[in-house]
Amino acid sequence: MAFRSGRHFLQIPGPTNVPDRVLRAIDYPTMDHRGPDFGHMGLEIIDGLKYVFQTKQPVVIYPASGTGAWEAALVNCFSPSDKVLMVETGHFASLWQKMAGKLGLQVELIATDWRRGADPAAVEAKLKEDKAHAIKAVCVVHNETSTGATSRIPLVRKAIDAAGHPALFMVDTISSLASIDYRHDEWGVDVTVAGSQKGLMLPPGLSFNAVSEKARKTAQSAKLPKAYWAWDEMIAANKTGYFPYTPATNLLYGLREAIAMLQEETLAGVFARHARHAEATRRAVRAWGLEILCANAEEYSNTLTAVMMPAGQDADALRKTILNAYDMSLGTGLGRLAGKIFRIGHLGDFNDLTLMGTLAGVEMGLALGGVTHKQGGVAAAMAYLTEAAQKQAPGAKLNAV
Amino acid sequence: MAFRSGRHFLQIPGPTNVPDRVLRAIDYPTMDHRGPDFGHMGLEIIDGLKYVFQTKQPVVIYPASGTGAWEAALVNCFSPSDKVLMVETGHFASLWQKMAGKLGLQVELIATDWRRGADPAAVEAKLKEDKAHAIKAVCVVHNETSTGATSRIPLVRKAIDAAGHPALFMVDTISSLASIDYRHDEWGVDVTVAGSQKGLMLPPGLSFNAVSEKARKTAQSAKLPKAYWAWDEMIAANKTGYFPYTPATNLLYGLREAIAMLQEETLAGVFARHARHAEATRRAVRAWGLEILCANAEEYSNTLTAVMMPAGQDADALRKTILNAYDMSLGTGLGRLAGKIFRIGHLGDFNDLTLMGTLAGVEMGLALGGVTHKQGGVAAAMAYLTEAAQKQAPGAKLNAV
Amino acid sequence: MAFRSGRHFLQIPGPTNVPDRVLRAIDYPTMDHRGPDFGHMGLEIIDGLKYVFQTKQPVVIYPASGTGAWEAALVNCFSPSDKVLMVETGHFASLWQKMAGKLGLQVELIATDWRRGADPAAVEAKLKEDKAHAIKAVCVVHNETSTGATSRIPLVRKAIDAAGHPALFMVDTISSLASIDYRHDEWGVDVTVAGSQKGLMLPPGLSFNAVSEKARKTAQSAKLPKAYWAWDEMIAANKTGYFPYTPATNLLYGLREAIAMLQEETLAGVFARHARHAEATRRAVRAWGLEILCANAEEYSNTLTAVMMPAGQDADALRKTILNAYDMSLGTGLGRLAGKIFRIGHLGDFNDLTLMGTLAGVEMGLALGGVTHKQGGVAAAMAYLTEAAQKQAPGAKLNAV
Amino acid sequence: MAFRSGRHFLQIPGPTNVPDRVLRAIDYPTMDHRGPDFGHMGLEIIDGLKYVFQTKQPVVIYPASGTGAWEAALVNCFSPSDKVLMVETGHFASLWQKMAGKLGLQVELIATDWRRGADPAAVEAKLKEDKAHAIKAVCVVHNETSTGATSRIPLVRKAIDAAGHPALFMVDTISSLASIDYRHDEWGVDVTVAGSQKGLMLPPGLSFNAVSEKARKTAQSAKLPKAYWAWDEMIAANKTGYFPYTPATNLLYGLREAIAMLQEETLAGVFARHARHAEATRRAVRAWGLEILCANAEEYSNTLTAVMMPAGQDADALRKTILNAYDMSLGTGLGRLAGKIFRIGHLGDFNDLTLMGTLAGVEMGLALGGVTHKQGGVAAAMAYLTEAAQKQAPGAKLNAV
Repeated sequence: MAFRSGRHFLQIPGPTNVPDRVLRAIDYPTMDHRGPDFGHMGLEIIDGLKYVFQTKQPVVIYPASGTGAWEAALVNCFSPSDKVLMVETGHFASLWQKMAGKLGLQVELIATDWRRGADPAAVEAKLKEDKAHAIKAVCVVHNETSTGATSRIPLVRKAIDAAGHPALFMVDTISSLASIDYRHDEWGVDVTVAGSQKGLMLPPGLSFNAVSEKARKTAQSAKLPKAYWAWDEMIAANKTGYFPYTPATNLLYGLREAIAMLQEETLAGVFARHARHAEATRRAVRAWGLEILCANAEEYSNTLTAVMMPAGQDADALRKTILNAYDMSLGTGLGRLAGKIFRIGHLGDFNDLTLMGTLAGVEMGLALGGVTHKQGGVAAAMAYLTEAAQKQAPGAKLNAV
Repeated sequence: MAFRSGRHFLQIPGPTNVPDRVLRAIDYPTMDHRGPDFGHMGLEIIDGLKYVFQTKQPVVIYPASGTGAWEAALVNCFSPSDKVLMVETGHFASLWQKMAGKLGLQVELIATDWRRGADPAAVEAKLKEDKAHAIKAVCVVHNETSTGATSRIPLVRKAIDAAGHPALFMVDTISSLASIDYRHDEWGVDVTVAGSQKGLMLPPGLSFNAVSEKARKTAQSAKLPKAYWAWDEMIAANKTGYFPYTPATNLLYGLREAIAMLQEETLAGVFARHARHAEATRRAVRAWGLEILCANAEEYSNTLTAVMMPAGQDADALRKTILNAYDMSLGTGLGRLAGKIFRIGHLGDFNDLTLMGTLAGVEMGLALGGVTHKQGGVAAAMAYLTEAAQKQAPGAKLNAV
Repeated sequence: MAFRSGRHFLQIPGPTNVPDRVLRAIDYPTMDHRGPDFGHMGLEIIDGLKYVFQTKQPVVIYPASGTGAWEAALVNCFSPSDKVLMVETGHFASLWQKMAGKLGLQVELIATDWRRGADPAAVEAKLKEDKAHAIKAVCVVHNETSTGATSRIPLVRKAIDAAGHPALFMVDTISSLASIDYRHDEWGVDVTVAGSQKGLMLPPGLSFNAVSEKARKTAQSAKLPKAYWAWDEMIAANKTGYFPYTPATNLLYGLREAIAMLQEETLAGVFARHARHAEATRRAVRAWGLEILCANAEEYSNTLTAVMMPAGQDADALRKTILNAYDMSLGTGLGRLAGKIFRIGHLGDFNDLTLMGTLAGVEMGLALGGVTHKQGGVAAAMAYLTEAAQKQAPGAKLNAV
Repeated sequence: MAFRSGRHFLQIPGPTNVPDRVLRAIDYPTMDHRGPDFGHMGLEIIDGLKYVFQTKQPVVIYPASGTGAWEAALVNCFSPSDKVLMVETGHFASLWQKMAGKLGLQVELIATDWRRGADPAAVEAKLKEDKAHAIKAVCVVHNETSTGATSRIPLVRKAIDAAGHPALFMVDTISSLASIDYRHDEWGVDVTVAGSQKGLMLPPGLSFNAVSEKARKTAQSAKLPKAYWAWDEMIAANKTGYFPYTPATNLLYGLREAIAMLQEETLAGVFARHARHAEATRRAVRAWGLEILCANAEEYSNTLTAVMMPAGQDADALRKTILNAYDMSLGTGLGRLAGKIFRIGHLGDFNDLTLMGTLAGVEMGLALGGVTHKQGGVAAAMAYLTEAAQKQAPGAKLNAV
């Protein structure tokens, strides 16, 4: 490939830009995973994860991608032919559903137009129909990475409660954890699925299950075969900071550092920052005269924005133009959205000026790629970020002529 | 913990000492796993792995520990209640067997005294008994990490052939690949299981299945549920250098570098080096008057040496003494060997002087820990390594008075 | 300090953003500076530097800051009370002149208004006056880092020749080398002074003297005391790739990598990129209604742009505002320019989107800081960069409505 | 070069093995050397250095090799033709003396046989002869890196006092600081010269002058030209944590980390560790039947041991043999010692097992290289280190048969 000067802009919605502190942490020499130092680190991490998931219950760490954590959630809780209720909010929800099928589960599906989150009313209706309680779990993707819509998990919880249904509640937070407010305990989730390469700011290779008491009880009688993913040995070994099989030590070094960074910024700070960048991005999109894929303003994602192309124009051609001209990676349209949208990731280790570089790259790319649009997106985002900074620093005066 | 000056000696039989080149490789910024640069790297790695496994067939890479690659081998090839023949050469063979049980397989077991490799004659006998060909696979651990015995895979292959049995042949090379000669194709293995953190000199977090045509055909009708571990999507995506779900990008950076290092040293060089260090270690053990656990000289492992403690003396107390006094980690006795042996890892990114530091640490530790032994192990190893170096440099004269 | 998410924008005119490849190179273990590997590296670097300086003559490397390389140029060539002609193009030229005074030289000064480069006619006039050839050297700063004006070295060379004067020609290229075209041999320079932390993309700590035959001859009779800076031992030792005293090994690792990067991009590519970013910046400044300090368009610097504040407004207050709100460092006004200007560095390992982040940070900061200005600088820069990209990719259409 | 597996043994007496913590520190992105974060780091480092030098007086940091710090000491304190008294304890003392000559100083020399430290009585005698106080300074190398002899600085101080002579006292601690006890204030030293690449565990590229009140006063009237090395601007700028010219930022990151490591281990711990490794090494040398160059047991160096070759045998041939066979670098004989000795560095980030690897490499190399010697050096060192460890852990029993 041709030489590229400067830093690549990795603005896909994950893997995200890994901060220098985390990169340096993962390149320390690997240690004995059965030695005393490891145990101390293990306990520190396991404890720190509770802060991130907002839980007091166990969080299991897998040396695996997020896809593995999906599988773990399913094989621990279900028996062959068990029925689960899933909401197809987009491509990733659809992949999770396919996985459930491959593992021998029956999926009851609530379809959507891939432009919004899970509809609590639809969930409630489905559960109420299920008098026999054949449905063993409700599975929802918190933040659908393929569409940029964030389901309102507390409302889904309320829907399950309103239906008086005993189903487990499983939530995929792969692209929301440590970026968008998420509360495993308070929101009554039974299994939270997460991965390392988004808000946790790590390279891919670790994934997670936060597990409720109810889920653990269910797991005891679940009959899908499991070994690598089995919770019990993990949770037992974790009590002293160790793992039943060799953990991904160097990624754990990075996780320790990432947790420390999140604690320094505080979750409240992290969420506010993501909200600011998301709003700035949406203002840019609107100024360009383009449409945000997510059709429900209450469900806009704060970690990525999916942008619809004008009819008949190819998103992937635009993405290629931007990659070639400006060395920036944007997310592609997945599944039925292929070619129709592109996705701007604005999550992880990120700041205002990198966002501005990102949006400038899109605006210049739209022009360069011949996409029908209006200028002014970058200007709109700058206006918003200036305002936001001014609120932080109240003495400052705005003084453009 | 108290401050320790200098480098820790990580002489467990894996994870091994990760070389600086690999550590620096894994700390590069994560890239887009769907972008063009990734595809180039993917193809380079997939091609390089064929050199390491000595195969022309596909090698599947999992973002997972070695344990995951065991599970992958099993769930791809078998249906519930299928029977497999396993040889319990030690703790890890025993864990694999337990996993097979958890996944619903029936295990026919050939027991051993945990002091030797798989007996080809026993395998042949078992297979000959199995007229109905109920046995679907023979599973052997190439190098048993818990005992330091290396099974002679070509002889086991011959035994299967001699029995005229159609069983698949599965071999775990987690602690032998890229350290001890291993030939996936020539030796007619159907599934080779491997991990990143031993001879491949990477941190843990990647594992592998090399897969024969026959295994892939078998997989098509196997009925154990599978998704994360399924070969087909992997092999299909790998053709262009990509993966069906997010790969562990930064560990792949390290893998690319590790393969380059192996190619620079050549496999022949790598194997000879491990053989030299293993022989030096065994001479030290004998000089100490201690017993090598592996009872068959033809099956001595070249990657680790398990050393038996004098009767009534505690191996773990010795390991703790050595860790505290000399900042060296040794391998513990696992399962039924707990407390009775310690294991010296001499594999991966390693050289003569680091071996001598290792053996000196053991010899001093034996004295410090009050273990019954004779001095002279280090001297015996030095004599051997000097001789070996002299063979390399024929002009040199030995001249100790 | 408060936690800051994302990457700091280091947009001072050096030290510049060190690329990941260079950072990883400098963190390799230090090697024996008298061993064979070092000699190979030394020769490779010394050879590579010739490409960068566009010379066939020796380039001396000091473990020192750029200030040290100034001193080296002076103490090697002069005797106490020697007279040198210097052009005070700004703060750094002024510091060099002060140093000359401290070292016991007499300085004949051509003053400027700190808004332009060296005037070739003025140099010629001074030299013509100097019938006795008392002036031993003409010293010019190629790119004045404090003002953003680039002297036209070929014209100064012609001026010296036109005057028929035998003075040495010394040029400081600290903030231009490997960013703006510079030709040590073709332009007849006798001593070129350079540093590591700007276009060479390294951390500070190395500096350079490229030395002509004539300068070396002069050095033989120069009487200023010298030891650390003496060229002769350096050049002699360099012939085999070694150094007379311990070199800064790890920075040399980085230098080797930086040279490789420059060769991959080619000097032509490097110069064109810097020209593009500089022009985009100037368009932004003009759109803001602010004045560029450099008053001569033929002497605009391609590595930094110094921007004048509206009368009565404080540049350092603005810089502080921008640092606090947007985590970006800009250059301060130095010496007589303190508080009156700020400087935008756009050199080194840099690209279009990072430039856009930079300019957005300035534009937002101007608003936030209450500085009188017009909006539209970012838009102007985007228009220019889009146009530039379109020229690269001729098939592309510009299509903003 | 041929591929080498494992870590190189860098056992020259500096640069030393840089610890992972320091390497990782120096590869963080360079920061603005005029920004607020830099000032905090600067103050932290300047303060920490006082601990290391055992002083309350200013310590000046140069972006330069140790050679530069020698020059700094001289040019700050002297005027042309000033006389200094130097003790030629070996090659480095001799180089310092040559430098003094190049800078125009007159050197009164006390010669030695290069096998011992500075003789306090000889110093006293010379000073007593100098009734006119023409001698402006006494310059001594604390630990002569070329010979492995450590001068007894407190005795030299007493000698100066006994002579009632007002000369400044300058001490080079390049290869002793942070390894062998050294007390700038208590021992009444006026200028202490040091470098980064030995006990400070950094790569080369930084050097130091610790400066007494008396030295600073002397400097005010000293007439040797100086600019880069001038103390006053440095000390003034350092008060707020900054530097008058661009500092070597990334090496300063490393320095901060190295100081933290020294504080964690404590100076007492550091000194005891070096003493232990030196004694072990000397026991090995004696067991080999070889002679330690340093002829005075009270002046044995704790950071390196120079070993004399049997008559007629070539040390550099041995060093080459060891480098080729065992990938270990040893120090060469310098100046008049060329070919006659080799030097074993045992300083910096180092531990017992790395020392044992080092000594094993020498013992095997002696055999391989055909050098007349006895075996048993490694055994002698092990015996000593075991004993030392036992003293640390009193419950342990020694139990070799």
